[in-house]
This record gives sequence, C-alpha cells and structure tokens, in this order.
Amino acid sequence: MPSENFDLVIAGGTLLTLSADMKIIEDATIGIRDGCIALVDAGFRPRAARTIDATGCLVLPGLVNTHTHLPMVCFRGLADDLPLMDWLQHHIFPMEARFVDKEMVNDGALLAMAEMILSGTTTVCDGYFFENQIAEAALSCGLRAVVSQGFADFATPDNPRYEKMMAAADRFAARWLPHAPLITPAFFCHSPYTCSPQTLVNVKAAARGAGILYLTHLLENQSEIDTIEGRYGKKPVQHLYDLGVLDERTIAVHCNWMSPDDIALFADLGVSVSHNPASSMKLAAGIAPVPDMLARGVAVGLGTDGSASNNDLDLFQEMDLAAKIHKVTQLDPTVMSAETVVRMATIEGARVLGLDALIGSVETGKRADLILVDMNQPHLTPLYNPYSHLVYAVRGADVKTSIIDGRIVMENRRLLTIDLAAAMEKVRAIGERIAAEHHQVVSR
Amino acid sequence: MPSENFDLVIAGGTLLTLSADMKIIEDATIGIRDGCIALVDAGFRPRAARTIDATGCLVLPGLVNTHTHLPMVCFRGLADDLPLMDWLQHHIFPMEARFVDKEMVNDGALLAMAEMILSGTTTVCDGYFFENQIAEAALSCGLRAVVSQGFADFATPDNPRYEKMMAAADRFAARWLPHAPLITPAFFCHSPYTCSPQTLVNVKAAARGAGILYLTHLLENQSEIDTIEGRYGKKPVQHLYDLGVLDERTIAVHCNWMSPDDIALFADLGVSVSHNPASSMKLAAGIAPVPDMLARGVAVGLGTDGSASNNDLDLFQEMDLAAKIHKVTQLDPTVMSAETVVRMATIEGARVLGLDALIGSVETGKRADLILVDMNQPHLTPLYNPYSHLVYAVRGADVKTSIIDGRIVMENRRLLTIDLAAAMEKVRAIGERIAAEHHQVVSR
Repeated sequence: MPSENFDLVIAGGTLLTLSADMKIIEDATIGIRDGCIALVDAGFRPRAARTIDATGCLVLPGLVNTHTHLPMVCFRGLADDLPLMDWLQHHIFPMEARFVDKEMVNDGALLAMAEMILSGTTTVCDGYFFENQIAEAALSCGLRAVVSQGFADFATPDNPRYEKMMAAADRFAARWLPHAPLITPAFFCHSPYTCSPQTLVNVKAAARGAGILYLTHLLENQSEIDTIEGRYGKKPVQHLYDLGVLDERTIAVHCNWMSPDDIALFADLGVSVSHNPASSMKLAAGIAPVPDMLARGVAVGLGTDGSASNNDLDLFQEMDLAAKIHKVTQLDPTVMSAETVVRMATIEGARVLGLDALIGSVETGKRADLILVDMNQPHLTPLYNPYSHLVYAVRGADVKTSIIDGRIVMENRRLLTIDLAAAMEKVRAIGERIAAEHHQVVSR
Repeated sequence: MPSENFDLVIAGGTLLTLSADMKIIEDATIGIRDGCIALVDAGFRPRAARTIDATGCLVLPGLVNTHTHLPMVCFRGLADDLPLMDWLQHHIFPMEARFVDKEMVNDGALLAMAEMILSGTTTVCDGYFFENQIAEAALSCGLRAVVSQGFADFATPDNPRYEKMMAAADRFAARWLPHAPLITPAFFCHSPYTCSPQTLVNVKAAARGAGILYLTHLLENQSEIDTIEGRYGKKPVQHLYDLGVLDERTIAVHCNWMSPDDIALFADLGVSVSHNPASSMKLAAGIAPVPDMLARGVAVGLGTDGSASNNDLDLFQEMDLAAKIHKVTQLDPTVMSAETVVRMATIEGARVLGLDALIGSVETGKRADLILVDMNQPHLTPLYNPYSHLVYAVRGADVKTSIIDGRIVMENRRLLTIDLAAAMEKVRAIGERIAAEHHQVVSR
C-alpha cells in the first residue's frame, strides 16, 4: 500500500475518524483516489499527485447539515424577534411571493453554499422552491446535496398550477437520480397542516416509487397539535402513522413537541429526525427531546434551518447550542456529551440522510468528504480534548481546508469553486430590492 | 472643528453610537484625542496623525465582559459534561490547587486577553487569584479591566494564611486605584456559601472605604437556596440584604434563581447583575429571569464566565445565546430584541461596572473604546439591520480592528500589544503539565 499512488494525500494531522469505535489517529495519513478514501494509516507520506500538510490541524469528516432553505440567505436579518405568524405572514411570505424566482434561488443558494463550505459543511439537505436551481448550484461548486422538491396544497412560486406539481416532481427525481450520491433528489411535504392527507400519501408513494427520501416539518410549534387534532381528531404523529407515510426513509424536521409515545413509534419505524436548535430557540418554537430520542436509538442529525431564523449556516454554532440547550433545560450537564454532538453533526447526520455507508466518517471505501480545522488559535489553546473544542470553542472560521468527493473546494480559507465576491454582490443587489419593497409593505 | 488635529480618526464606517437615542451615523467621522472621543460627525476626514478607513465596517463601542476568570483558559476543555460538584471537586479545584501560581495567572491572563481583544472585547471584569498579575497583564496590553481581588473563608493559592487577606486587599486597592479608569480595583466575595456573614460584611465595608465595586456569585444553582436556608433560615438575597451588602456598587453574578421579590429588591437598591448564559447552560445551572429584570430596570450586563465552563471568551456568542435562550424558555420570540442584547454587551455592561459615564457608547467626551466589524463576509450578506447581524450572525473573528483608550490594540486582525505566538506557547506548556497531572488524578 505505501507504494501506491494517490490523487491526494492529507498527512500530519490528528484524525477523528468518527468510526464506530471513535478511533483517533495522530500524524494520520489519508490517501484519496477517484474521490474515495483509499487509505487510512499513520506516520508516513505516500506518493501522491498532491499532498496537503495537516500539521496542527484536526482532520474530521465534513459536517452534515440535515435541514435548511438555502436561498433564504436573501432574507437574513430582514425581520427578527417577532411572533412566528406575524413574521411569516407579514414579512417572509409576502417577500417570498414577490422575490422568489429562478435567479434569486440560484444566487441565494450559491452564497449560502459559499458560507457553508467556509464553515466546514460538506453535505446539505435543502428544501425550497425551484430545487433544480439548487441542484445545479451544488453541482457547480461541488457541494454534496440532498435536494428536496417541496409540496404544499397551494400554488408555489415554482408551481403556479398546483395540479402540475406531481408530474414536475417525477421529472425532477428522474433528472437528478443519475447524479447520486453527489446530488440526491428527495421530496418534501411542507407539513401535515399545509398538506392534505391525499398530498401526504401521494408524495410518499412517489418517493417510494423513485426510491428516495421523504421529508416533512413536524411538531415545530405546539399549536400544530391543536390544528391537527381539530381537523383529524388525532395528534400529528398518529395522523402521519395512520396515513402510512412514516418509515425508515422519512425524515421529520424539528420534532419539538414529541411525546414519549411518538418517540417510541419513531424508534420502531426507523423514522429519522433533524434537530435545529438555533432556529427553534430564535423562533421560540420549542426544544426537541433529543436526549430521549437518542436513548431510544432514533437517528438525530443537526440542521441550521434557513438563515432567516438562525441567522447563519454555521454548524459549529449548532453543535454548541445542541450541547448546551438540553443540559440547561434538563438541569443535567451529563446529557449531550461533546462526542455525541460531534457524531450528530457527522455520521448520525449521514445516517439521517441514508448516506452513512458513503460519508460521515473517515474510513477506507467511503467518499472523501473531509475538513481540516486549524487548532493554532488562541481560543483553541490549550487542547485537551478535540471533541470538546469542536463543540464548545471552534467556530466556522477555524476551518482551513475542505474536501468534498475528493475535490478540494476550499484551501487555506480560499474558496476554489465559487467566486465569492460575485456571489456576495448578487445577493446584495437582491437585498437592496427586498429592502425597498419590505419598507413599503411594513409601512402600509 | 473640522480644522482641528486629532491623534486618530476613524472614518467611513456605519457608526452605532449606542447613545440613549440609539443614533446610527452613516459615513461616520470619529475624532480621537488624548484617548478621548473628541468628535462624532459624518461625511468628512479631518486632519489627524493617523486615519483608519472603516468603509464596509460597522463601528461600535467595544464590548464589555462583566464576568470572567481569565487564567482558567488553562483549564479550557480539560473536563466537560460533568455534574457541577464532580467537575469542581475532582477536576477544577485539585488542578487549581496544584497549578495556580503567579506565572500561570500571568500567562493564562495574557492569552485570554489576546482572545478577548481578537473577538471585540475592550473591557473585562475579572475575578481570580493573584489579581495583581491580572492587572499588570491588562496594563501591559492596554485592555480596560476591573480587577477583583477574591475572598473566601479558606486559604487560597495567593493567600495561604486566611487572616492576611484583608490587609493584602487594602494594599491591592491602593496600588491600582491610581490607574483608574483603565485599571479599576474591586473586591469579590466568592459567594454567600463560601463566605461567612462576617467576611461578607467586612469586605463590603472595605470596598465602601476604598470607593470600589463589590461582587459576589449569587444563585448560580438552585441548591444554593437550600444551603443558605439551612444555615441562616432565609433565602440568599434576603441574607445579603440583612447583612447590608446590597447597594448600587454591588454586582451579583449569575442570578439564575431570582424570585420576583428578589428582582424588585435589586431594582429598589440599584444592585447590578452579570448574566452568563453560555456557562449557565453548559453547567446546567439554570436560566436567569433576565427579561423580568430588565423590565424592572435592573442593570444587566453579559459575561462569559471562565473558559472552563463556556469554553471561550467570545461575547458575540454570548449575545446570540442571550437573545435565543430567553425566547425559547418563555416561548415568546419578542423578548430580548437584538437591540436590547447589543445594549447589554456595551452601554448596559458599562453601567453594571459603574463606567457608563466613561465608556459603553460612542459620544464626545467618553474614552475611545471602539471596534470595527468587517461586514464584507458571506455570512453577513445582505445587511438589513446591523443589530440583528451583531447578535445573530457576527462572530468574534469578524472584528477587524480594536481601539482601547485611544490606542490601537488590534489592526486588521493582528494584535499590536501581545506576542500571540509566545502567549499560546506558554499556555500550551502549562497545559501539558496539567494534562499529565490530571491524568494521574482521574486514574487514581
């Protein structure tokens, strides 16, 4: 093996493999060939077309963001600290109706992808309108993406005629399935309160037919329970269960108001969960019972949600919040250890997305999604426990180099696949138009 | 005025004055002379020995950290996710007993000060052992500091003979009072459960005699209520009130378990509060009722607490947490607006420390403590509301330049008063010794 040639070698760092045994390798050697991890060893530098010196860095699997709405970077900080329905109905929805088009989705997504790559994310699961544009943006910059075509029982910016949604979705899945596992299509029913039972069932049938993931927002706010009980005489999880849409290829996003019975059902059925602490805290939506879910074996990954309710896409901050919020609400500092949280941001996030055989840990045979974190920083000195630092002290800006599918997409903080200045300028221009219109809307 | 000469001019940025009317000035001109803000205007560049171009930056008062234990950077990440008493008694206290000396305090404080300056803090209120060393470190690097000599009813690393503490404290106050307002001495009684009534009263009398601040940890954990009730037959706030130590020159740190009556008493007496959300969340200590305190007019500032329970000294993260934690626990997104939180990190923090006539806002006549935040970043694009970005999206690493008392201490992310590489190397060496000893202690 040492005499083999590699396309790329990462040598000299401290490797957190995130393998099942959580093996840590000092002075690690990672050999990459054809986008795959072909060698994980220590202490030498094999022949390679390119070698990156990782001395002084932690090397770990790239982070997995299991839920966001990328183009919402265009609304970042437009309206904050408002009641949820006021925020949605008087700020976000009117601005989306006015401004969401292919160009805004493309430009917003590209800036969001730049921000994510710069902060260590290598895989994202997105759900928004014009999802073809998201997929194309991801393909262009080399970000691994699960792109989820959205459904709701009303006309959307990308489907002004509701009855055409399903045919468009089938075309979307067929178009992107050949790009897996870099780009993977999925279907996203917005929620049990915006999708009829028929929509929920039909979309799940289509997802099963295509062999792809099915997502829905679920139990973000307490009020959803009353809404669904009022309509269907049962709680949301029971409603989805009775419709037959819950299985091991279903991801429920938020899950802030899960009962113990709901959690047991998810565990039995293999339903996965995306936990978005920053957004749920900022919107005052609630706190998901994540320690209880993990104790029952439910796969839980981390998500940032869209930038309008966070307001950034930095998974390091999400890790910090995920570790702290459950400690204080349970008054128990032993829940949500740093190791547990790093697993949620990597291998468990991959498991949520059904990609854990391919990514989420640094092991031979997996796709080469890796990040290097520069530990030579005052706020990371001294270093006793790498997991502790990753959760409680590292920030996105400490990520030095990012590799996705064997391709270097950022090196020494410089993006190699996105023109950052151009991406910022385009979103600034969109922001100026939004600001002018928003000013008129709120002053009416 | 435009024809006057200044030592330093900051021109071209968007200035958040944090004045009472929260005035924002575009293309601002700030003239500095003899460490003071001599001019606040807009749109021109007066003659000056030095001009800094702040185009593309937010300019705002430097941040005020109202509570920390600086040398605890040496224990950052040594032990996490443990029950409080296990953490203190089996990890932190034994390591402090073994390693805290003048050199460790000096080296740890200097690295902590580097980290703080790099993340936008210009004033810190510290409490630890060997506080003379902290004051000297602050003086050497130009950081504004309230340095609090600690008291407890047992021998400490800096006072092996308890009965000598008071005399040492008087010398400490006399030594540092001439350095105010850059360095301001204060006295810190550790807590009502580690200080006897006599100690609490004597130290307050000495603080009053010297005309300096008096601090104590208070109501960090719920168990403190039982402890104090068991000893004195009353709750902690009533206990301190009956001892006569609560007044407008007293700062209570944490205050996680304040009753409405406690809050009313603080409001009546003018007692100030240091809120440390990251530490209280990580230690699962509790959540201070900050919105209620603010509604009653209690001055509340932000603090990071020591790095062992945070695990960094970044006040931008503290702002983010302070905004989010109260929203979700009260299920009300309108509490703790971004503006309110930025005020807590600046002018209200200054008010807590009794320094609001001198710092905390950018107004003529105040000392020149200013930071420039580089907004030309993907995660800060677009920009609708500067307060929103400061709280929800800016990170310490976005601070470009810091000025304290008119002196440029960091410029373009480069520290000008601290040898950062040397500071990191010294703490790394301390960390290696601590790690070896800690390994022996925990494996016993």
